[in-house]
Amino acid sequence: MELSHFMDIALRYKVIFFDSYGVLRNYKGVFDGVKEMLNTLDKHNISYFVLTNDASRAPEQLAEKFNRHGINEITTDKIISSGMLAHKYLESKINHGTVVYLGTEDSAHYIESAGLDTISIKDVDLDNIGDYRAIALLDDEGFDWNADITKTLNLLRKANMPVIVANTDATYPTSKSNVNVAIGAIADMLEVLARKTFIRFGKPDSQMFDYAFEHAVRERKVGLRDILMVGDTLKTDIIGGNKFGIDTCLVLSGNIQAKNAEMVINATGIIPDYICESVFA
Amino acid sequence: MELSHFMDIALRYKVIFFDSYGVLRNYKGVFDGVKEMLNTLDKHNISYFVLTNDASRAPEQLAEKFNRHGINEITTDKIISSGMLAHKYLESKINHGTVVYLGTEDSAHYIESAGLDTISIKDVDLDNIGDYRAIALLDDEGFDWNADITKTLNLLRKANMPVIVANTDATYPTSKSNVNVAIGAIADMLEVLARKTFIRFGKPDSQMFDYAFEHAVRERKVGLRDILMVGDTLKTDIIGGNKFGIDTCLVLSGNIQAKNAEMVINATGIIPDYICESVFA
Amino acid sequence: MELSHFMDIALRYKVIFFDSYGVLRNYKGVFDGVKEMLNTLDKHNISYFVLTNDASRAPEQLAEKFNRHGINEITTDKIISSGMLAHKYLESKINHGTVVYLGTEDSAHYIESAGLDTISIKDVDLDNIGDYRAIALLDDEGFDWNADITKTLNLLRKANMPVIVANTDATYPTSKSNVNVAIGAIADMLEVLARKTFIRFGKPDSQMFDYAFEHAVRERKVGLRDILMVGDTLKTDIIGGNKFGIDTCLVLSGNIQAKNAEMVINATGIIPDYICESVFA
Amino acid sequence: MELSHFMDIALRYKVIFFDSYGVLRNYKGVFDGVKEMLNTLDKHNISYFVLTNDASRAPEQLAEKFNRHGINEITTDKIISSGMLAHKYLESKINHGTVVYLGTEDSAHYIESAGLDTISIKDVDLDNIGDYRAIALLDDEGFDWNADITKTLNLLRKANMPVIVANTDATYPTSKSNVNVAIGAIADMLEVLARKTFIRFGKPDSQMFDYAFEHAVRERKVGLRDILMVGDTLKTDIIGGNKFGIDTCLVLSGNIQAKNAEMVINATGIIPDYICESVFA
Repeated sequence: MELSHFMDIALRYKVIFFDSYGVLRNYKGVFDGVKEMLNTLDKHNISYFVLTNDASRAPEQLAEKFNRHGINEITTDKIISSGMLAHKYLESKINHGTVVYLGTEDSAHYIESAGLDTISIKDVDLDNIGDYRAIALLDDEGFDWNADITKTLNLLRKANMPVIVANTDATYPTSKSNVNVAIGAIADMLEVLARKTFIRFGKPDSQMFDYAFEHAVRERKVGLRDILMVGDTLKTDIIGGNKFGIDTCLVLSGNIQAKNAEMVINATGIIPDYICESVFA
Repeated sequence: MELSHFMDIALRYKVIFFDSYGVLRNYKGVFDGVKEMLNTLDKHNISYFVLTNDASRAPEQLAEKFNRHGINEITTDKIISSGMLAHKYLESKINHGTVVYLGTEDSAHYIESAGLDTISIKDVDLDNIGDYRAIALLDDEGFDWNADITKTLNLLRKANMPVIVANTDATYPTSKSNVNVAIGAIADMLEVLARKTFIRFGKPDSQMFDYAFEHAVRERKVGLRDILMVGDTLKTDIIGGNKFGIDTCLVLSGNIQAKNAEMVINATGIIPDYICESVFA
Repeated sequence: MELSHFMDIALRYKVIFFDSYGVLRNYKGVFDGVKEMLNTLDKHNISYFVLTNDASRAPEQLAEKFNRHGINEITTDKIISSGMLAHKYLESKINHGTVVYLGTEDSAHYIESAGLDTISIKDVDLDNIGDYRAIALLDDEGFDWNADITKTLNLLRKANMPVIVANTDATYPTSKSNVNVAIGAIADMLEVLARKTFIRFGKPDSQMFDYAFEHAVRERKVGLRDILMVGDTLKTDIIGGNKFGIDTCLVLSGNIQAKNAEMVINATGIIPDYICESVFA
Repeated sequence: MELSHFMDIALRYKVIFFDSYGVLRNYKGVFDGVKEMLNTLDKHNISYFVLTNDASRAPEQLAEKFNRHGINEITTDKIISSGMLAHKYLESKINHGTVVYLGTEDSAHYIESAGLDTISIKDVDLDNIGDYRAIALLDDEGFDWNADITKTLNLLRKANMPVIVANTDATYPTSKSNVNVAIGAIADMLEVLARKTFIRFGKPDSQMFDYAFEHAVRERKVGLRDILMVGDTLKTDIIGGNKFGIDTCLVLSGNIQAKNAEMVINATGIIPDYICESVFA
């Protein structure tokens, strides 16, 4: 297994897609060296976007999390979140009426900004169901799992409507050794129990990459060969980038440790084009 | 599809295994006519047992639920619960130390009666993990799903130990149109997230039928051909009975409505030997 | 459930995406009335494309199957096959060397036209493995399942390389009551046995819809709201179209019979915007 | 991870259950030292049985494979095969008529010895289906996968009947680095395609252990604590033994190499009571 120096690779491309968590930041905050790395890309006129499976906050808030750490390079227009795909779906396919959501009030932004009314699953009355157009699973916080997972299941048994999942991740790290269960895992459970087919947005699905590609093309003329996807997770970032037809770079600053990298790549059959220690080293 | 009269079938056997919910009782209580049916079996010297995927209460309490409705025929020794198999496993394989449980204090009975100490997941301190011997998933009540499902996952990431699931059902009915999510569904989610293999007890697993068979044999000399399994669920009662090699009877007083029975049997390929409207009609 | 007349719906759109099998044709040949329907679309200046999960033949050959039945309206440039996505992937990500394939010689076209060399799995020598760049699962014919499924598995155990699946369908109809097992089902089996993550192309994946969208945009200026997806299968055509954000129309001339349509829509939670008996009636 | 000497462990038990492949033999033949080990067990009056997921041959033939290598200690009555459970099911639940089978003529023994007629899937005429009582998946050889897997699927679409799988293994080794696809993997594929629930026999299912326990009890008075299961596979031998409530011993002469043992045990959560290099070293 050959390790490359990130900047040696990056300078060959016109556009970089970065995963956020494990690549640019972790539970402690933004990694040292990220600002310098982004400045080098700017200097070489290389565009970049952050592709994140996150529907808990609006793009403005996601950018603000970087700005707060002094990374003003990552502006709102550089954020591509799975929530934005859910928003796009709601806008084109639902377009009026009320959507039930599981998540925080912040996450409901993605529904409201599509011109739709929202109701939290907490406030749904199963004995007097309104005319709901869809259910959106947005975030693991903001509702009572004991009561509201069951309530969602019973709502689906009473009324047939599309269910959209705006973050397909099953867990997310909260410290060096701990994880939280994410809404993607709750979605998987509910889908089996309800025996319905849910609609999922987020990496590795190609819709996410295509949406980012559209953003890149709006800025400048680029083809698939001009883009590099950089991520720490084989099952989302790397396989998704590979399938979309762009080059991929695995970094070892997140999910996968250097000593395990070769073993995990062989075990999964998901092969990145490059491997780097991090985007800053 | 030919419907049989239950007693015409039952009288050909020496032992009847009854599922509980949907067969002898539902959310409203014990069905009318069950007492008379059991008395007829008694008169003809036919033994019977109740096989239930329930680990929320001790056998005494499960029997008491029938006695409360005037069904004194169902005594504690006639109850075969999946919790009893979990108890047997803990007794033979763990036999000392402390077991972490998810469930009510009532459900912890199955661990304590195996001579083991218990600690609720609520009381586990992840920063100071004790010497736990196993985790037992017993009941969907008695803990905070938001906090404690995540805590269970992180406990499993820190310490390798067997996880036993004492009720494999994914949901259970709470009214004519509503269900609750059962501990079996939470176990399925946790097993995927932790990437471990859990140990499951309950129908359709043959261990449950074998345990009931041992009880039957203790009472009288019987072979597989002398036993009839009666249930309302193809995926637990009927396939489990078929695989164990005993005759099976589907009743239409629970999960499956008469108009759908033929379609569901064809769709699943799970074929009961008999179909009856109920055990009392 | 309200049935619409297809042409009443179609005339509201600028572009129609048609599934092929069960919509325009079946095992007997092209449906009567398809030619007239396409002529009406032409007259109203409505573009159309055929989206098919088929990698067994080149687009030219797929178009020829329609032409042979007198449907000259469907030209090669109107065919969007899952094989074309596989081709695009091979071109952008592999771009030189030899690819092992499972399928007929016809299906290997999709690899060769990407400038790559091919070797049939039949001709691979496990004791002397060449420098293969990928394995492509293209078609269920053209190899010996007994020998070559096992050979593929052992090849993957010896050499780590991407595996692409150019048709995700599990079965396809061969007569009114019979089906064939398709390469998608063999891919599912091999993926589990090899414990690798394969790369799949074809509906319902949004990449297929996006590729067709690119073709449509090249012809004329259209947005998502100008496009209708027409299909007979909820799990590929309808859910795929819905997720991509375009309107969807289920036709009852293929997989789903009129009497079951409402039940199947409720059971799956996959809800088309319109339902029509067929595209020609 | 502490390694034990096998005989130090074995002498504490009254009965040993051995897996066959990877424990007593491999693709080269019976391991050196097995005869001496069995003689030592005989000397100490310790009973033993071979539990094997094999339905390709009658118990007599399975014993003969050992005898041929000079191991006369393993007599027919010491063989417990998953085929014997399939036989028991057919005898108690089907008991007359014709059963369709996939496998060699040798494997059909398990059906014929239950007093049933057999027909190979090869000889079934889909246009003129006989009155078949069940389908038995016995062995990966003896039929044409291209033609007969599809034929089995279409047979199941035309006629509802139980499908039994007499060997649940997905693969089996044929040399140091190669495996064959076993009938269990074909069963998994067919079950998904047919959307039916098949009936599976073999480790880790407790019915296999219970059947062996019955044989042990017939020889001498033993309880669960007197029995040790010895195997090289965590997912069948060890989890199955653990769940059945008996002690388990992992040997490193087959599937799992010494350097990986700890990692695999942690990754799966399947924990043997003992680990030994082999049964003879």
